Amino acid sequence: MKELKNLLGFREEIKVLDATLRDGGLVNDFYFSDEFVKDLYRANIKAGVDYMEIGYKADKEMFDVNKFGKWKFCDDDDVWAVFGDKDPELKLGVMADVGRCNYKEDIHNRSESPIDFVRVATYVNTIPTALHMIEDAKNKGYEVTCNIMAISNAQESDMKIALDMLGQSPVDVIYIVDSFGSLYPEQIARIANLYLETAEKYGKEIGMHAHNNQQLAFANTIEACGDGVNWLDATYSEMGRGAGNCAMELLLGFLRNPKYNVYPVLQFIEKHMMKLKKEGITWGYDLQYLMTGQLNQHPRTAIAFTKDGREDYCEFYKEVVAQD
Amino acid sequence: MKELKNLLGFREEIKVLDATLRDGGLVNDFYFSDEFVKDLYRANIKAGVDYMEIGYKADKEMFDVNKFGKWKFCDDDDVWAVFGDKDPELKLGVMADVGRCNYKEDIHNRSESPIDFVRVATYVNTIPTALHMIEDAKNKGYEVTCNIMAISNAQESDMKIALDMLGQSPVDVIYIVDSFGSLYPEQIARIANLYLETAEKYGKEIGMHAHNNQQLAFANTIEACGDGVNWLDATYSEMGRGAGNCAMELLLGFLRNPKYNVYPVLQFIEKHMMKLKKEGITWGYDLQYLMTGQLNQHPRTAIAFTKDGREDYCEFYKEVVAQD
Repeated sequence: MKELKNLLGFREEIKVLDATLRDGGLVNDFYFSDEFVKDLYRANIKAGVDYMEIGYKADKEMFDVNKFGKWKFCDDDDVWAVFGDKDPELKLGVMADVGRCNYKEDIHNRSESPIDFVRVATYVNTIPTALHMIEDAKNKGYEVTCNIMAISNAQESDMKIALDMLGQSPVDVIYIVDSFGSLYPEQIARIANLYLETAEKYGKEIGMHAHNNQQLAFANTIEACGDGVNWLDATYSEMGRGAGNCAMELLLGFLRNPKYNVYPVLQFIEKHMMKLKKEGITWGYDLQYLMTGQLNQHPRTAIAFTKDGREDYCEFYKEVVAQD
Repeated sequence: MKELKNLLGFREEIKVLDATLRDGGLVNDFYFSDEFVKDLYRANIKAGVDYMEIGYKADKEMFDVNKFGKWKFCDDDDVWAVFGDKDPELKLGVMADVGRCNYKEDIHNRSESPIDFVRVATYVNTIPTALHMIEDAKNKGYEVTCNIMAISNAQESDMKIALDMLGQSPVDVIYIVDSFGSLYPEQIARIANLYLETAEKYGKEIGMHAHNNQQLAFANTIEACGDGVNWLDATYSEMGRGAGNCAMELLLGFLRNPKYNVYPVLQFIEKHMMKLKKEGITWGYDLQYLMTGQLNQHPRTAIAFTKDGREDYCEFYKEVVAQD
């Protein structure tokens, strides 16, 4: 029986992670104003959020610094400049993508850095490199999490091997990531059980990172939570790539730990997120994302459809079905 | 264990009900064009939808026929005019509200009517009148369902009595209705178990009618489906009062019975629903509906907020919290 049968209680171990700048940055090429970032930081503190992912450590040899805002790179100096008076209650982190991050040089020792945690993002077939990155970050003093992406396309037997390898690594948290927004709550329950076996065996925590292609990001997140997953990702106004993520305002309204407070989230949304939308920044559930989600495909075609301002949904459906 | 553990199979008993004209009519005062209604009817047939709710039987003594489209009243002649060549595979129905329907006069014998089923909508405290209406409709030859509304505010012991009364009536289907969009999947599971006990005892079917205030309409519908609920309501583009309902395009993408086909739904949406939205007809998930949903309140204040074009979400939050 799920723990949520007891909806009025709460679990101290649950951690909420705000991924607005990182996943949301994929929507606006990381061009957030300093005011936006500072207000978001203060809102997170007031709301009781535990971890805040502020962007990527992207390799400047691969990505042009003139084409992205600074949160694509998260140089320590840029982070210090904005988060100068850090609150120890809210930990800051960056994502480091396998193959797109010069981690040996760009991630410095935690003692010299404003960053507290590193999230290594990998596919199942790049786990060995991810393990190097995890060890590197751990040796530098960070809390380390690992996102295994696109698992809806991975073989279960491969997943088991990957989880075992990560279990034996120094990683702290292993994330279930529904990259394509294609998974249903029942599938999340099965996957969570698989991940939690590793967690129990090796003393790790499990996390959930959902996408909203089928309007299930929040439902899948609370499903995972009820199954025993403790680290829960959310973003303000569900801002994130394509159909977006689990909305922070939904998640904090659901969690019963009195440390969480939804009102600062609503204040931030009214001040900043509505403005972004009026400026034409577009994300969130729409028919083209439903289609790629239902077909268990990467959302890149749907993102292009959105960017091109297309409205010929049925034509698009025929295109993506033809890709299968 | 839930049946959905077997996601690749399907259950013959599942029926999909399209409530677009009825619940969606609450958004545009039932002013749908004949072309819209005819195309929707054809789309439902192609999509394999089993039941189609076309509007209300509203009492003309209470509601001015000049202030609403004809689907608020569903006069038999109006229905015949549009659905003249009825397909026997897709059954048509109307909603009859307790206290707002002159059912004795306005609902004629099924043998003379284009209507196949009557949905009686009631609150827990008006069950005796609902029972009269159920018997009246049954005696006139209809399939009869009953929606018990606003159950998130009802006492469980009252619910049990109400279910027992309905169990002993000639009603065919009893609906779980999350009027305020405030219930979580775990709660739906508990409620479904309660309703299914009655279904088993008295040989009734159970249905699910969800609202999307917390982006859980689809999740709650498939949760109920997995628990054994067979009648599932949905609307195209989730068009329905306030935050809307479970989207037909999500539900048909999920169900595995080969009789269902999502493509005609997508075609209809591209042709008609996008146009409605461009004309300024507004419905669907938004922050004001999240607030009333989280607070388990009727969405009427949020609907007024939307209608007034307000954007002061935090002010609104303070207003609705003060109402508690």
